[in-house]
Formats: sequence, C-alpha cells, structure tokens
Amino acid sequence: MIKTIGVQTHNQQLVEITREAQNLLDSASSDSGLLTLFIRHTSASLIVQENADPSVQHDLLNWMNHLVPENQSLFTHTSEGPDDMPAHIKAMLTQSSIAVPFENRRLMLGTWQGLFLFEHRRGRHPRQIIAHF
Amino acid sequence: MIKTIGVQTHNQQLVEITREAQNLLDSASSDSGLLTLFIRHTSASLIVQENADPSVQHDLLNWMNHLVPENQSLFTHTSEGPDDMPAHIKAMLTQSSIAVPFENRRLMLGTWQGLFLFEHRRGRHPRQIIAHF
Amino acid sequence: MIKTIGVQTHNQQLVEITREAQNLLDSASSDSGLLTLFIRHTSASLIVQENADPSVQHDLLNWMNHLVPENQSLFTHTSEGPDDMPAHIKAMLTQSSIAVPFENRRLMLGTWQGLFLFEHRRGRHPRQIIAHF
Repeated sequence: MIKTIGVQTHNQQLVEITREAQNLLDSASSDSGLLTLFIRHTSASLIVQENADPSVQHDLLNWMNHLVPENQSLFTHTSEGPDDMPAHIKAMLTQSSIAVPFENRRLMLGTWQGLFLFEHRRGRHPRQIIAHF
Repeated sequence: MIKTIGVQTHNQQLVEITREAQNLLDSASSDSGLLTLFIRHTSASLIVQENADPSVQHDLLNWMNHLVPENQSLFTHTSEGPDDMPAHIKAMLTQSSIAVPFENRRLMLGTWQGLFLFEHRRGRHPRQIIAHF
Repeated sequence: MIKTIGVQTHNQQLVEITREAQNLLDSASSDSGLLTLFIRHTSASLIVQENADPSVQHDLLNWMNHLVPENQSLFTHTSEGPDDMPAHIKAMLTQSSIAVPFENRRLMLGTWQGLFLFEHRRGRHPRQIIAHF
C-alpha cells in the first residue's frame, strides 16, 4: 500500500506527523508490518525525535542553524537564496527515509518518540511524504 | 516477523549488535529478504561501521563529543542533565532505522561492516531495537 | 529480488546512481513496492540530493571536508591514511541504507531528487550497493 502525507510548512520548523502516519495503518492489509516514509524533497527531511518537551525541537533547530550557518564563503550554489544550500546540507545530515515496524496496527514507537518532518527552508513550502506499508 | 533486541548500555559507547541481528534470521520465513532495525529511543541510535579496528569506534565517539559539546549556551532543554540534549542531536545526526538485505539467511554486510547501537548518554540505559524481517 | 549495483569511484565525489536504481525495476515482480539500497562500505555512503544543479553536489562535498578535516589530533585510527577516519565519520553522518517507494515501476522521487553514492575517500575504490525490491 502506498499513500501520500501532505504537509504545508511555514518557516524552518519541525512538524510532527506521528498521527498522520499512525492513521494510515487503518487501511493496512495486515495487522503487523513495516511502515516506510520517504520525503520527496532535498531541503526538508525526516527525523524521529522526542515529542514530549517542545524545547527539544527548539534546540535541534537552533543547533542545526548553528552548525550550518548561511552565507558561508565556500558555498557556490547561492542562486536559490541564502537558506537553500544550508537546507540541502541539513537534509543530508538527517534522513530521507525512515522505517518503523508496526504490530496490531500500532507503530512500535518508543514512549517519547514522534515522527517529524524537518523543514530547513524559510517561507512556505508544500511538502510530500510517501508512505509504503 | 517482528522481534526485539535488548541492549543494556553503560556510558557513551558503541555496542556491536551484528551477531544478535544475524541470529534472528534463523527464524526467518524465507532464505532471503530485508532486515530492518528500528531503535525505540531518541538519545541512542543505529549506525553501520567498521568492526575490525576498535580505534574507529573510539574515534567516532570522541569526534561526536567534539562536534556536540555539552552545556552549549543555545540549549534550553537542560532539565534532564547536560548529556541529554547533545544525545538528541547525535541521534538526529545518525540513524533511527537501518535496513540490510539478507541472502541464504546471511546479512549481506561488507567484509568490515558491523551493526552498532550508539549510546549517546552517560549512565546505564536499557535499550530496545525492533527487528522486522 | 536482490541485485547489486557496482560503482567504480575516483577520488571524493558524488556519483549519481538514479538510473541504475530505476533500471533494476524492469525486473520487479510487481508494479509497485519499495526499493531499498544498502551500501557495503563504511567509508562511502548513500544520500538523496538535488540532481539539477551540480553546484549543490560540489558544495556538499566541500562542506563535509570543512566539517571533518583530516589530521585532527583526536584521531587515533590513522594507519589507513589521513582520509580514512574522516571518511568513516562522513559515512556515519549520512546514510548506509535508503528506501524509496515505486509505483508503475517508477521510483517515486521528487522532481529534483537523485540517488547518490557519496565516496569519502581519495583514490579509486570499487563499491557495491545491494538493492532489495
């Protein structure tokens, strides 16, 4: 089964998609299996992170901006704006695809785990995640 | 088939789990397929790395501590100890899930490759990895 | 179905393997499913990145060299040359396995996405990627 999760982003942010991913399993053909998510972009990415305390997400985003500042002199790909090349780097350092087993139609996430789309660009972007299960 | 690999960690370390993963394939329903590992934590993660020379693992751990030092002024998530937020960052920069094909019930790892749980926190932590195959 | 993609690398570089991956699907047993790639090395890795403008690939490579310079004093694993330990670190920070859904025997990549082998070592290296689909 292949489905699409659409996410509209606004600025650099982590958008939790755990519920959307879990809800897809209502249409799974068997009770247990593997959910694989794939993001169709190279300036946004996927991560599994703590979803209990929002300060974790805040710090992850700020630390990534600290690691990959804009306007570095080594950048030659600058035509799409100062946030574009850092976005590609941040996407490279995180994940394009993530797989999570499920049982009894429930994702086997840990107690504090959530699935997140990590938007690395400013502005508004319509994002697509393909789910295979 | 879904199974769990449990690992008890002691301090920041790489724990090789290649044998545990390989042994699961004794109960695989077919001779070839895909083993997917998913870690149920956000302050420990999974990597595939060289398992021949332990100095590689030593340097990986030290370099990560060098890249993500504790007590950075940008951290606001500090309530769970100085090693917690760096652990989340290190988990983000490595992998939550890894997939390895197998044939003749043998993981198709390269000659020098091993599967590792990467513990990013100090102290003792019981960790769970879900295996789907 | 399990197949191997062989790549001969020459120096640190990104080698696009999208076409090789797509071509494998001609022999897929069903029209839709999941292609998983796994690289059998720990000093080369896999990423999904923009394949429209080569300057992105150029900047990704240079930025990784900037993040992980050779000859750092904390390295103890130096016997395989100055580019070896940085290569392991760069592999750790990117991916060993990537999964991409396909439909109508077409990889569901985004418009600007390509699949790349990221060679982190200098010199010539024969690399193997295992494909499961």
